[in-house]
Order: sequence, then C-alpha cells, then structure tokens
Amino acid sequence: QHVPYPHIKLAPEESLRRSNEFYELMNKRRSVRFFSSDPVPREVIDNLIRTAGTAPSGAHTEPWTFVAVGDQEIKKEIRAIVEAEEEINYSKRMGSQWVNDLKGLRTTWVKEYLTEAAWIILVFKQTYGILPDGRKRNHYYHEISTALAGGILLSAIQNAGLVTLTSTPLNCGPQLRTLLNRSSNEKMMLLLPVGYPRHDATVPDLKRKPLDEIMAVV
Amino acid sequence: QHVPYPHIKLAPEESLRRSNEFYELMNKRRSVRFFSSDPVPREVIDNLIRTAGTAPSGAHTEPWTFVAVGDQEIKKEIRAIVEAEEEINYSKRMGSQWVNDLKGLRTTWVKEYLTEAAWIILVFKQTYGILPDGRKRNHYYHEISTALAGGILLSAIQNAGLVTLTSTPLNCGPQLRTLLNRSSNEKMMLLLPVGYPRHDATVPDLKRKPLDEIMAVV
Ligand SMILES: Cc1cc2nc3c(=O)[nH]c(=O)nc-3n(C[C@H](O)[C@H](O)[C@H](O)COP(=O)(O)O)c2cc1C
Ligand SMILES: Cc1cc2nc3c(=O)[nH]c(=O)nc-3n(C[C@H](O)[C@H](O)[C@H](O)COP(=O)(O)O)c2cc1C
Repeated sequence: QHVPYPHIKLAPEESLRRSNEFYELMNKRRSVRFFSSDPVPREVIDNLIRTAGTAPSGAHTEPWTFVAVGDQEIKKEIRAIVEAEEEINYSKRMGSQWVNDLKGLRTTWVKEYLTEAAWIILVFKQTYGILPDGRKRNHYYHEISTALAGGILLSAIQNAGLVTLTSTPLNCGPQLRTLLNRSSNEKMMLLLPVGYPRHDATVPDLKRKPLDEIMAVV
Repeated sequence: QHVPYPHIKLAPEESLRRSNEFYELMNKRRSVRFFSSDPVPREVIDNLIRTAGTAPSGAHTEPWTFVAVGDQEIKKEIRAIVEAEEEINYSKRMGSQWVNDLKGLRTTWVKEYLTEAAWIILVFKQTYGILPDGRKRNHYYHEISTALAGGILLSAIQNAGLVTLTSTPLNCGPQLRTLLNRSSNEKMMLLLPVGYPRHDATVPDLKRKPLDEIMAVV
C-alpha cells in the first residue's frame, strides 16, 4: 500500500533562487476590489481548482467543494445576497470598532466586483462526508484542510497572472448554499472574485510586517 | 491612502500555460514521513516564511508567527513532547474509528522525522494582537487567515524542491508554546518538518479526487 516516493534533489542554490523568485511573485499579490470584465478561459479556472485540490487534508478526506460561477445572472443574485447582508453588517452587526478597523481599506457594502469579475469561485468546506452506504464519514480538520487548499488556490491565481479578493461575507453562507444547490454538509468558507483588475484599480497603501516580526528562529 | 495597483496582463495562453505548470508542480506534493538529515540553508527557510507572510488576512492583522527550529536539542524536545502525546492519542483519545481511518497511512506515534528533518516550522495563530498601549487588538478571522498563510507556505516549500508533512499534533500546543517561549495569544496550528526525503522514502498509494468531484460550474 506504500509506494516509493520519487524525488529529484535540487542544488541548494537552485532552491534559494526558486524561493526568492516565488517570494517576489507572491509579494506582488494584493486584494483587488476593482475588476474589469475581461474574460478568463474556463480551462484556466479548471487548472486553478485542480491545483487547490492537491492540498493535504486530515486523513486524506479532501473535504472541499469549489463552485465556479461564470453565469452573469447567478453573479447578480450573489451580489444581491451579499450586498443586502453587508449593508446590515456595516450598519448594525459589526460595531464601531470593526468599522473603524476597516476604514483604511475603504470597503463598503457595494460590491460591484461581484458582477464585474469574470468568475466567482466559492470555497465550501464539507463538515462531514457521506459514505457509499449513506452513513456519515468524519472529516477530521475540515476547516483547516479547506483553508490550506484556499491558500494554494490563492498561490495558483497569483501565479496565473490573475487577481482576486479574499472575502468571507458574513451571514451569507446559507443563502448562497441554497442558491448554488449545495448540500447541508457544505458550508461556505471563502468567496473569491477572480479575473483582471480594472485599468484604474487602486489598493490601500499597506505595508507588510518585516520578517523579524513574523519569524523566530531557534 | 489608496495607490494605483500596477498589473501587467498576461496573454490568456500564457495564463493557461502557467496554470498547467503550477498544477503539475503542486500535484507532485506528497506528505513525506521519512526525512534525511541533509541541511537546508537558513536563507531558504527565511524566504519560505517571507512568502507565507504575503497572505491576505482579515483587516490586514497578519495574525501569525512562524517558528523555525534548526537546533538539534530543541528538535529532540519537540519529538519527546509529540511522541508522548501521540502515544496517548493513538491508544486512548482517538477511538477505533479514527485509528481505522488512519490505517492506510501507516502512521504511528513514533516520529523519527522530527529529529531527522533539517528544520521544523511551527505555525502559530495569534488569537488577538497587542496594541502599542497594551490594549488587545481584535484579530478577525485569525484561524482562517493563518491557515491561508499555511497553504501559501506549503506552495513555497514545494516550489523550492523541499518536502514537508502537514501535521496538527493533538494536545501538544501548550507544551510546545512553553518550550518555544511563545506568548499566551499564540496558539499552535501546524507543525511542519521541512527538508529532504530519505532516499528510501515511501508514501501511501493515494489517489486524489478527479476534478468533477471537487468542482461545480455554474
Ligand atoms: C490539518 C491536517 C492534519 C494532518 N495531521 C497529520 C498527522 O498528525 N500525522 C500525519 O502523519 N499526517 C497528517 N496529515 C497529512 C494527511 O494524512 C495527508 O495530507 C493526506 O493523507 C493526503 O496525503 P498527501 O498530503 O500526501 O496528499 C495532516 C494533514 C492535514 C491537512
Ligand atoms: C479571512 C479573510 C476575510 C476577508 N474579508 C474581506 C472582506 O469581506 N472584504 C474585503 O474587502 N476584504 C476582505 N479581506 C481582505 C483583507 O482586507 C486583506 O487581505 C488585507 O487588507 C491585506 O491586504 P492584501 O490582501 O492586499 O495584502 C479578507 C481577508 C481574509 C484573509
């Protein structure tokens, strides 16, 4: 049941070069909130999701479903759901501290990008699985496994020259699950518009923490 | 406070080529449980963690700490902690269903790789932050943000030609936090041995779900 693991060892200098290059690529990633409607081929979206599906998972349960929405009418319905909930989030649910913490991002409840971006990828975690005989299958660590797959998906999107906005629309999960006909073991985790930035897209002028603030060496 | 977002648009064929190539690279990733002690330069580890630190995070809180352990004595102490807890996990905590679900992986509570791998990277989520004036800062979505950073870290490790084992040693968090002098807002999320596979490393003969089982298109 175990098989040899094939591995070709790179020279350390080559690992160093590749690790630098990948850092430079990923460091250019930004959450983009202004999209153009330029199309993205379906084959590219397929490859991005295939790549996310290579993630590790607790006991190899692969507890994820990716829904790629390209249909303009469904995108409109998603936008309507998200905007209605986000208006309540901003005006009532979040509280002044949260609204204040988000000020620099200049986000609002208007989400034009949900109808502009070529695709919306919704990432669902499966809280349990269903065995051939109908019994439930335990999905160990489904939350973290699906988020790891999400991180790999973000890498794949960036690597393909596309942009996204990582988002977790509060309180929209059940409505979006119904809209997209997902079953009750599937819970929405991430909503990612995917496509190209608008020509005049801007981003908050954020800095990232320097390495010594996020790393300790022992 | 907003700045223009610079973007160079790739031709769709180029996006397709890159998305294919990245899928092929990531699809070769496997969780490896047999490591050689071949060294990995510190600069490579720095770059991997720098890359993880480019992840998005709720309200840009960057709620993560990465601890890279290269010291052999500390690795021994980590191994002692993990093996002691894992023995209890396997014999008492997990229950026969879990033990059964793990059978194909042939994992046990003996974790030689924890002292063999060149490095161990521990990923901590910060459940809250601390403001300059000492007050607590809310870390929105710290769990999912840190796991997304973990997924980007896995991509970076694979891209650099190294291997890892994604693991979440049950009940070891508090002891490892104490050993590594982390503060009380830091909770261990992932423990990743990082290095090269042993020449005779094997992996379980697993298949991944085909695309149509993990993707829906609308
Ligand atoms: C959150 C999480 C926890 C895991 N914990 C362990 C672990 O404690 N021990 C182990 O041997 N493997 C662990 N794994 C690895 C999985 O068993 C592995 O990813 C899965 O069998 C698929 O194999 P692959 O990673 O080679 O594709 C874990 C994976 C994830 C995502
Ligand atoms: C879990 C999570 C949830 C997020 N939710 C939202 C959101 O609802 N709306 C939004 O505009 N940005 C959201 N973001 C994006 C963050 O604001 C962004 O990642 C952060 O400001 C850092 O900017 P960067 O991604 O450009 O580096 C979210 C990010 C994460 C990781």
